[in-house]
Amino acid sequence: MSILAVGSIAFDTIATPSGKVENMLGGSATYFSLAASYFSNVRVVAVVGEDFTAADEDVLKKRGVDTRGIDHAPGRTFRWGGQYLDNLNEAKTDFTELNVFEKFQPRIPSQYADSEFLFLGNIHPSLQAAVRLEMDGVRLTGGDTMNFWIQGALAELKETLKLVNVLLINDGEAKMLAGERNLPRAARKVLAMGPQALVIKHGEYGATIFFREGAFGIGSHPFRAPALPIDEVKDPTGAGDSFAGGFMGYIASQGELNREVLKRALFYGGVMGSFAVERFGTERLQNLTREEIDARFQLFRELTHLE
Amino acid sequence: MSILAVGSIAFDTIATPSGKVENMLGGSATYFSLAASYFSNVRVVAVVGEDFTAADEDVLKKRGVDTRGIDHAPGRTFRWGGQYLDNLNEAKTDFTELNVFEKFQPRIPSQYADSEFLFLGNIHPSLQAAVRLEMDGVRLTGGDTMNFWIQGALAELKETLKLVNVLLINDGEAKMLAGERNLPRAARKVLAMGPQALVIKHGEYGATIFFREGAFGIGSHPFRAPALPIDEVKDPTGAGDSFAGGFMGYIASQGELNREVLKRALFYGGVMGSFAVERFGTERLQNLTREEIDARFQLFRELTHLE
Repeated sequence: MSILAVGSIAFDTIATPSGKVENMLGGSATYFSLAASYFSNVRVVAVVGEDFTAADEDVLKKRGVDTRGIDHAPGRTFRWGGQYLDNLNEAKTDFTELNVFEKFQPRIPSQYADSEFLFLGNIHPSLQAAVRLEMDGVRLTGGDTMNFWIQGALAELKETLKLVNVLLINDGEAKMLAGERNLPRAARKVLAMGPQALVIKHGEYGATIFFREGAFGIGSHPFRAPALPIDEVKDPTGAGDSFAGGFMGYIASQGELNREVLKRALFYGGVMGSFAVERFGTERLQNLTREEIDARFQLFRELTHLE
Repeated sequence: MSILAVGSIAFDTIATPSGKVENMLGGSATYFSLAASYFSNVRVVAVVGEDFTAADEDVLKKRGVDTRGIDHAPGRTFRWGGQYLDNLNEAKTDFTELNVFEKFQPRIPSQYADSEFLFLGNIHPSLQAAVRLEMDGVRLTGGDTMNFWIQGALAELKETLKLVNVLLINDGEAKMLAGERNLPRAARKVLAMGPQALVIKHGEYGATIFFREGAFGIGSHPFRAPALPIDEVKDPTGAGDSFAGGFMGYIASQGELNREVLKRALFYGGVMGSFAVERFGTERLQNLTREEIDARFQLFRELTHLE
């Protein structure tokens, strides 16, 4: 089945303990689309500038991603510079040039109208809501957000959360959004804002999915997937978006929407996140095979499952 | 089978967001022994002062713990005061009165000589080594340590690590001991110091066990157990020692020493840690049933296992 993904396309300049790269293709929509492309058809809505080349677009096209929703605007593509020299778990931003992204107005091609799944990448909550309302026939909407919107556009974000089925955020974002430091209590408060399920990403410790009572199944027991202990995290950029891509991509590849599917999706999210960080930028996500992905899924299982 | 546990007995004064208690029975040997007592026979070696009453000792005796190795010395029992008001994951020490613990020289009663398992709680590495060398017939030795010894007694600690089969420490301690910030690489460096297995505790995110190549089974794949998302952590004190008690207690209850036993032990460690933090001090650990423990083990399984 098809997923429509809306988000950013960017050129990133990144320094990590493993090295430095400049103006490398990135952005939430890029990482998400590449990761999800191993499971489902992906259609992307984003904006780029005149510096976005055919070779850049080919990175997505080679993975079968439908790029007709990429808006080519006058000016330069969104650029971000950051470093992880002191802490691989948290980026320190060096610069942000919004460029064409500043006036991004998502335009959904008519050919995307039959998408069954929707992923709202980390953009202004009002834009997320507009896309979601336009795509009112989707079976499931996943969404991301960040501290910037929680602090700066909370009212709009709360409206958007009513339209999102599964929200994917990290520990700090969940605690900030809920105004609550205890994680399960924070999860319940966020679920009360709208989503039926909440995925909280713990970085190197994996992720937990919390369910609203009765959503996608019986009860409200959470479920936890691991992350892979990795010897060298070359570049953590895009790990969260790749996680979301694996998670949503796997869900869209399944016929049913139930707890077991969402639990497996949490594992596939971790799997795609673990691949993403092994190389700079999207390199590792461009040339995977489904066999490699399933072998790593098996590794995640062995890492956590008793006999 | 029997475990000999050596460590501290203390009176703790603790403040958490849930409340405050003064002079409450605690200490590494106390938490460890109570947690392990649900699985195996436990014998304790520790030192107390004249303020340690028969009622205090009864807390251990009621759980069947053999207390003949508790040395009653002139003076006051070790006292510690700390708070978790800002951060439940890290204690801020208000005061430490070593008292009789300052001159602690573990004396092992002859009746303990046939103990098959040994746990070296967090005391000076030289004392740990002396106990281990005296108990040279044990099948498996578990050990704990802390930043204080890593910084202040590293040479002695490295000698002790050659005598320990399974070391249980937290992320920060593992990274400090290895001088390495990447967790799997830090784990390999610590394993090269002696232990066959290393349990790294991640607090609310669970724990990972790393194996030396070929130790307790084939290969060197790590294994990860979750922690339970808990609505109200009343008092984190003793969580690590309770974890160690569940871990070692379960191992000692099994006939064989293999990977599967150690993996299950990691789950039981998490289970006992999760009970410990639900009440102040050792309260919750005093009155559990094996049925409650196994029900929670099942909850840990459901939290992590796919169908």
